[in-house]
Amino acid sequence: MEQQEIRDLLQQVKEGAVSTEEVLMRLKLEPFEDIDIAKIDNHRGLRQGASEIIYGASKTPEQIDVIARKMYEGGQRTILITRMSREAAEYIDKDLPFTYYADAKVGLVGQMIEPRQKGYILVATGGTSDIPVAEEAALTAEILGNNVKRVYDVGVAGIHRLLAHTEDIMNARVIIAIAGMEGALASVIGGLADCPVIAVPTSVGYGTALGGVTALLSMLNSCASGVSVVNIDNGFGAGYQAHLINNMEG
Amino acid sequence: MEQQEIRDLLQQVKEGAVSTEEVLMRLKLEPFEDIDIAKIDNHRGLRQGASEIIYGASKTPEQIDVIARKMYEGGQRTILITRMSREAAEYIDKDLPFTYYADAKVGLVGQMIEPRQKGYILVATGGTSDIPVAEEAALTAEILGNNVKRVYDVGVAGIHRLLAHTEDIMNARVIIAIAGMEGALASVIGGLADCPVIAVPTSVGYGTALGGVTALLSMLNSCASGVSVVNIDNGFGAGYQAHLINNMEG
Amino acid sequence: MEQQEIRDLLQQVKEGAVSTEEVLMRLKLEPFEDIDIAKIDNHRGLRQGASEIIYGASKTPEQIDVIARKMYEGGQRTILITRMSREAAEYIDKDLPFTYYADAKVGLVGQMIEPRQKGYILVATGGTSDIPVAEEAALTAEILGNNVKRVYDVGVAGIHRLLAHTEDIMNARVIIAIAGMEGALASVIGGLADCPVIAVPTSVGYGTALGGVTALLSMLNSCASGVSVVNIDNGFGAGYQAHLINNMEG
Amino acid sequence: MEQQEIRDLLQQVKEGAVSTEEVLMRLKLEPFEDIDIAKIDNHRGLRQGASEIIYGASKTPEQIDVIARKMYEGGQRTILITRMSREAAEYIDKDLPFTYYADAKVGLVGQMIEPRQKGYILVATGGTSDIPVAEEAALTAEILGNNVKRVYDVGVAGIHRLLAHTEDIMNARVIIAIAGMEGALASVIGGLADCPVIAVPTSVGYGTALGGVTALLSMLNSCASGVSVVNIDNGFGAGYQAHLINNMEG
Amino acid sequence: MEQQEIRDLLQQVKEGAVSTEEVLMRLKLEPFEDIDIAKIDNHRGLRQGASEIIYGASKTPEQIDVIARKMYEGGQRTILITRMSREAAEYIDKDLPFTYYADAKVGLVGQMIEPRQKGYILVATGGTSDIPVAEEAALTAEILGNNVKRVYDVGVAGIHRLLAHTEDIMNARVIIAIAGMEGALASVIGGLADCPVIAVPTSVGYGTALGGVTALLSMLNSCASGVSVVNIDNGFGAGYQAHLINNMEG
Amino acid sequence: MEQQEIRDLLQQVKEGAVSTEEVLMRLKLEPFEDIDIAKIDNHRGLRQGASEIIYGASKTPEQIDVIARKMYEGGQRTILITRMSREAAEYIDKDLPFTYYADAKVGLVGQMIEPRQKGYILVATGGTSDIPVAEEAALTAEILGNNVKRVYDVGVAGIHRLLAHTEDIMNARVIIAIAGMEGALASVIGGLADCPVIAVPTSVGYGTALGGVTALLSMLNSCASGVSVVNIDNGFGAGYQAHLINNMEG
Amino acid sequence: MEQQEIRDLLQQVKEGAVSTEEVLMRLKLEPFEDIDIAKIDNHRGLRQGASEIIYGASKTPEQIDVIARKMYEGGQRTILITRMSREAAEYIDKDLPFTYYADAKVGLVGQMIEPRQKGYILVATGGTSDIPVAEEAALTAEILGNNVKRVYDVGVAGIHRLLAHTEDIMNARVIIAIAGMEGALASVIGGLADCPVIAVPTSVGYGTALGGVTALLSMLNSCASGVSVVNIDNGFGAGYQAHLINNMEG
Amino acid sequence: MEQQEIRDLLQQVKEGAVSTEEVLMRLKLEPFEDIDIAKIDNHRGLRQGASEIIYGASKTPEQIDVIARKMYEGGQRTILITRMSREAAEYIDKDLPFTYYADAKVGLVGQMIEPRQKGYILVATGGTSDIPVAEEAALTAEILGNNVKRVYDVGVAGIHRLLAHTEDIMNARVIIAIAGMEGALASVIGGLADCPVIAVPTSVGYGTALGGVTALLSMLNSCASGVSVVNIDNGFGAGYQAHLINNMEG
Repeated sequence: MEQQEIRDLLQQVKEGAVSTEEVLMRLKLEPFEDIDIAKIDNHRGLRQGASEIIYGASKTPEQIDVIARKMYEGGQRTILITRMSREAAEYIDKDLPFTYYADAKVGLVGQMIEPRQKGYILVATGGTSDIPVAEEAALTAEILGNNVKRVYDVGVAGIHRLLAHTEDIMNARVIIAIAGMEGALASVIGGLADCPVIAVPTSVGYGTALGGVTALLSMLNSCASGVSVVNIDNGFGAGYQAHLINNMEG
Repeated sequence: MEQQEIRDLLQQVKEGAVSTEEVLMRLKLEPFEDIDIAKIDNHRGLRQGASEIIYGASKTPEQIDVIARKMYEGGQRTILITRMSREAAEYIDKDLPFTYYADAKVGLVGQMIEPRQKGYILVATGGTSDIPVAEEAALTAEILGNNVKRVYDVGVAGIHRLLAHTEDIMNARVIIAIAGMEGALASVIGGLADCPVIAVPTSVGYGTALGGVTALLSMLNSCASGVSVVNIDNGFGAGYQAHLINNMEG
Repeated sequence: MEQQEIRDLLQQVKEGAVSTEEVLMRLKLEPFEDIDIAKIDNHRGLRQGASEIIYGASKTPEQIDVIARKMYEGGQRTILITRMSREAAEYIDKDLPFTYYADAKVGLVGQMIEPRQKGYILVATGGTSDIPVAEEAALTAEILGNNVKRVYDVGVAGIHRLLAHTEDIMNARVIIAIAGMEGALASVIGGLADCPVIAVPTSVGYGTALGGVTALLSMLNSCASGVSVVNIDNGFGAGYQAHLINNMEG
Repeated sequence: MEQQEIRDLLQQVKEGAVSTEEVLMRLKLEPFEDIDIAKIDNHRGLRQGASEIIYGASKTPEQIDVIARKMYEGGQRTILITRMSREAAEYIDKDLPFTYYADAKVGLVGQMIEPRQKGYILVATGGTSDIPVAEEAALTAEILGNNVKRVYDVGVAGIHRLLAHTEDIMNARVIIAIAGMEGALASVIGGLADCPVIAVPTSVGYGTALGGVTALLSMLNSCASGVSVVNIDNGFGAGYQAHLINNMEG
Repeated sequence: MEQQEIRDLLQQVKEGAVSTEEVLMRLKLEPFEDIDIAKIDNHRGLRQGASEIIYGASKTPEQIDVIARKMYEGGQRTILITRMSREAAEYIDKDLPFTYYADAKVGLVGQMIEPRQKGYILVATGGTSDIPVAEEAALTAEILGNNVKRVYDVGVAGIHRLLAHTEDIMNARVIIAIAGMEGALASVIGGLADCPVIAVPTSVGYGTALGGVTALLSMLNSCASGVSVVNIDNGFGAGYQAHLINNMEG
Repeated sequence: MEQQEIRDLLQQVKEGAVSTEEVLMRLKLEPFEDIDIAKIDNHRGLRQGASEIIYGASKTPEQIDVIARKMYEGGQRTILITRMSREAAEYIDKDLPFTYYADAKVGLVGQMIEPRQKGYILVATGGTSDIPVAEEAALTAEILGNNVKRVYDVGVAGIHRLLAHTEDIMNARVIIAIAGMEGALASVIGGLADCPVIAVPTSVGYGTALGGVTALLSMLNSCASGVSVVNIDNGFGAGYQAHLINNMEG
Repeated sequence: MEQQEIRDLLQQVKEGAVSTEEVLMRLKLEPFEDIDIAKIDNHRGLRQGASEIIYGASKTPEQIDVIARKMYEGGQRTILITRMSREAAEYIDKDLPFTYYADAKVGLVGQMIEPRQKGYILVATGGTSDIPVAEEAALTAEILGNNVKRVYDVGVAGIHRLLAHTEDIMNARVIIAIAGMEGALASVIGGLADCPVIAVPTSVGYGTALGGVTALLSMLNSCASGVSVVNIDNGFGAGYQAHLINNMEG
Repeated sequence: MEQQEIRDLLQQVKEGAVSTEEVLMRLKLEPFEDIDIAKIDNHRGLRQGASEIIYGASKTPEQIDVIARKMYEGGQRTILITRMSREAAEYIDKDLPFTYYADAKVGLVGQMIEPRQKGYILVATGGTSDIPVAEEAALTAEILGNNVKRVYDVGVAGIHRLLAHTEDIMNARVIIAIAGMEGALASVIGGLADCPVIAVPTSVGYGTALGGVTALLSMLNSCASGVSVVNIDNGFGAGYQAHLINNMEG
């Protein structure tokens, strides 16, 4: 089944023209390309409206290379690879158009999608140690087609540094607030913003930082409304949800 | 300072006509009406684009009544009161237009705001015990001006009950997935939906349900992308963020 | 041994005129008045430079009454009773000069000590639910002879409310920052102040607030320097240490 | 005492011909072969009706080799070695019939037992990272004489992948559901199956996955009936119990 | 659709005559009887081969009565109600054939199913305080059609009391081992038995018993093979799984 | 803006001559020197009355060198570097006046500030393993201009060793009590002292020491008044707060 | 079998005259008197050399009365009942010689055993709130035939109060150190004593006292040698073990 | 002060001839030999009646060598070194009479003390992985002058292996029960023994063994009386307390 075909099918579901069950059954006929080392799930992308994403953490360089290549050959032009080691990055077939963002451990086969939205997603961090997680979030959003504004190292212990960005905060469409230690950044930003805020706790800190649990708990108990939270160090998850929100049809 | 005046001021900030600092300073002149038992913070509403909200949990019936009355007299026509006891509900001044939703412990002084968006927010629960939290979420969203579709008791142990609502899931603009016990609902819905999903763990369960912590942890580790999480039993928080997302300008 | 006598003795220790061991041995001759239901420890007060303090939580009204009366008869003119139930307050001998602060569950037999210091201790809270703990802290400090300035309900989700008190913060000699939920207040105040900050987590909140543990962890991981922490809801402990700091000899 | 002899004895217990005490006492005469580095417990096998099992985790290659050889010389023809390092595998006496399953860290001296049951045990995983644990479970069951059907990478975030195996699930005699992260697989399978389900949480995930504790808690709180749980990453335990269940006499 | 009809349909699935999808779709036409206060899910019973079960914990006496009556009128002759309060038991329609087991908080509308299996499920407890949980397990199994042998108060601190039942243990088809405090019973029984053992931790104990968490952890780490675990105090879950195992076709 | 200028400005704030807002706005014009790899925040030092501090843990040797050099060139004569690796210490520009304290992992560019106070801060440890943390605390205090008296290895299991220092304790102006394992030192010292005590739990210990959490909990529950606590192993934080307290104006 | 008979039998075991197995088997013939509501286990007493003990926590007044009466009629003259409610105490048959110790919730049917040892067990507490647990420990020891010296309210925050009892500590044969909050008493006593110390954490405290867990952790990490620990609030357990130690034959 | 002198002094304390305070003061004159790298505390040994003990974990080989040599030169003939690395063992001065027990990481300078007691301490383990901890306990006891009987690998999953040692258990004077995983050994032994049992949890296990916490919790909740517990892996602590108990004067 060609991609366009699937897209049409899906469109029909949305319009109620065909029932979900029918579609599920039809899709089941060729649900994923089994390339032995992985089941390439073309459905997920379809269902969720995103380009292809490879979670690199538990895959060998060889596996990532094969999967990415298969996808690219299948016509995919924006393939995001998260938690990708430098070793895996170096292994990628030289014929593929590939960029590696070492800080964020993010790889991109193909090119970033053009933003449809003029507004931006704001990515803010409490400290400099949070930057790798922030870059994972920011690049995820950029690759999926969003403008991103970065505001790093604006932790609440120096509140004037954060307030200097009040306008950036008030004009953002979505905000990703990233912090370790006590994670207070989410609450302060949540109080200043009138847009959805996604908080990402990081494992930055020591002792009772408990590997990010303290920041997580802090963010879940934010006294500001409109803040939700993702897993510790999950920059991708925040970037992905921010992308979904930013591209809401009005 | 009149409300319209403040709104104009805020608009200027967004347009960059005046600096945030200027506004903050001007607002500081009359930042909240101090009615002795509470500081009525008109700013928060302004900053966050919502009607007034009273968190009823730590307030006496008398206090809630006074605050709500003051607000109503001040021109507010949609005042949402969360975690409101029946006792407090009965205490509310009979002259005020007041509705009490006992299940959700939600009170409304004035009326619901008319939805601007045609689409709907889907509120789904794993079981019937999750309904009070779900109603808090649903009513929050409805009062703030959103269409809500409720799909209750569709826990994953009977997956066909959930799949029967696949179309509801695929057509939603935002989904609030509410579950206690093992909280698996968020992952399954997250995998089916292509819109933002806000997961709410509930304190339903016993033993190792740990008062909702198990559902929370489960939701934070959802293998589906695009899921974020709020505090245990925080229906209001989810409803509020869903409202912000649903009203994004495209 | 008369109080003045003991004071002289203690002074000699500080001057090195007598060894600590000598004093300990002498004190041991009459270390506490045993009134059957309690050992009235006159030493602690001496050692720690404070008036007498009765921890009311685990004592019956009768016991508190007897102890307080004995102390008063012994010449004590400032007797602070913490965690005192209303029932216990009503039981206190009507002949004693007694004041009860119901919010803080603090009782005072005798009168407050006159402040020696012109400056003040600032007591700030994130929300109104934190006020009982704050009052325990504030009254402890006032009774022990300190000026106290109260700034309540200045949680970080409405940062402008806190910033409106920047001068209060910058001019304080010691600050007690009290908050439940995510406890971010300590970090923001810690960043603004150049004096010692004592943070008090409170048990305010629900779900993952974990009865104050989240606020505690948050405060221990404050990214601001100069912040230390006491036990959950321990207003007395914070007030007591603030008193010691405020009365440092320059 | 010869093996057959012991077996007869045990049979008599079951028939009530001799009392347990008598047997225990007789067995006590030669309870285990003490080969210095280990007490080879022939009883356990007898009592529990399984072939011999060596838990390799805390033993040196030399020790495993000696124990396995002794057992083989003693007539054992199916010796399962779990948590066996590659180093230990390479050390095994070349004269022994030996197979090493590197993924599962399982070694087999001798051969697999022929299945008595035609039906199969289904081993399902949420992701590919769970496969090592799954293989430990599957090989344990196969070696002990069971047919096994593997269904890997069917996590609930792509529910259609799991539903594609509905018939496999409904026809299984026992199911082992293996998942890390949020562990929701157990609940969904538990709801679809009408046979016993043994859930195995794995340590796959990061941050709040808490090394498998989240998946464990999730599985213990499964809203489906008929699900029980073993320790984190305990593929062997699940495979062993599944074997016992699969071989129940009708 | 009549029950027999559904049963036939399900049988066809097992034989592969119709696909699961077909069945799911057909069942979807009348998936549950919606009696307003509940969705009576006739499917679950079908799918899982059990009679109807009502989880009474979160339902009012009125609700339980209505549901049970509807089921009984629908032809159900064995309706198990768990976690049923005495109040709810007294509310049940006097015309229904009803038995209440107060210790176990179990109600039965109709009668127990006749056991198909001659062998028995052994239900053992460490102490007398564990008996309510044990009775929930035992009655669940009995009502679903199993012989049950009870061996209570055989905790490992008096090992001779347990050993006196060695024959009962060795002859059981399935064992449910129930204990609070340190939960050691599961390990000792697991070592003596050659059948599947389901361990149920109970919330019996104080201090570091942690409401059953200690027993749970202990059971998950049992050094005996063939032990799996259910949630704290989940007697029903254990009884249900034991029933599934006991009725395996050989 | 020159440093003297800023200092004058700040002085005016304290005197009320200018409002805080004015100052904040003026400072905002040149808030930090952006040297690309870091934002050198000259404000924090100003606001908090300390010399410059570099937190070395998350910075490369190159980064530390550049920042320290920039600061030194900017006129700073006391630059404290905490959590500095030996590698980073060796990388520091040889032209800078630099001292490295290997035990404490503390570096000093420039020289210690002369103490204004005659009295001393007492730094006490329970064991010898706590010394690195103690040295971080002691050097922080010394570098910032305080006299420090060290009393190490005086754990409460040998109470006479601690009592031998009773006079040191009674004469101290501030005490930093540092201990791992059960952390009882803080309580005993807290009972002997009449000055503020800052307790530092350390990660010394094994098993249930839980990496310092046990000592932390113990210190938070000290039965002595006047004890507050900082994060595990946070010698710097304790030294810094002790410095603030020691330099209170009387 | 008469008690003397059993005692003789047991003696023979110790002398090696008969094997344990023989005894176990003989005892099995009449292992416990089954009085329907309880299995009166005469063995435990025999095996462990103590008089009879009834754990009252989970028994009704009627049950306790019946069991105690049966035991008394069976010749027992020292029956210790722990965790006995006042209600149960009042229910005890008036014909039985009965004493109730309300503080400790301990009941005694018959009389205390005469001490064989001249020396004493020291029972020390940190505060007055620990006294109920201490009395359970002290009475357990006294009833079983031991001299007990009580030293209450000697918490380490007033170390001179504890040191005033140095001789009591150094002359004790066994010490039971009981404390809540930070539990430091065990370490200080452990350092002063040269006899075994049994530490009992209590649930006294609030916030991070965590219901006794903090004191427990603290005691397990005592830096003094020779300290072991029992469960939170387990005065009986400590008293019982102290009794065993005190009556060691030299 | 010569050792004999100190011993005499201490004897006088016990007899009441001199007061403790006098002795403490006299001892204070020369409390410990300060050899720069350590304060050799001759008091602890005196106070606690043991030979010298060096805790090797946090000391360099050089430090251990110097301390041991100093002690030996000072006349000590039994110096126990715990947690001693092989590297440290090899560094010890060849002129010293030294033995290293690699399994237990125990070093001995000089010789074991002759046992005064004929009876023995039983050291039992659940598995072979627990042996290093057991050997630390056993050697501690032996070096301090006690007979030790070892019974290893008698975990409760093979209860007959443990019962085979019933006589060893019933004849022991003190028992040290060592186990990881579920730690059930302590309860079973506690039920069989009539002497004090000291339980040692070990960090053996994986997943929910939680590094020994599960075994610890299990042991603290032992349903057998007379069991107390030490820290995880603390073989020394158990051996030391067993030594104190075994040498009680009758």
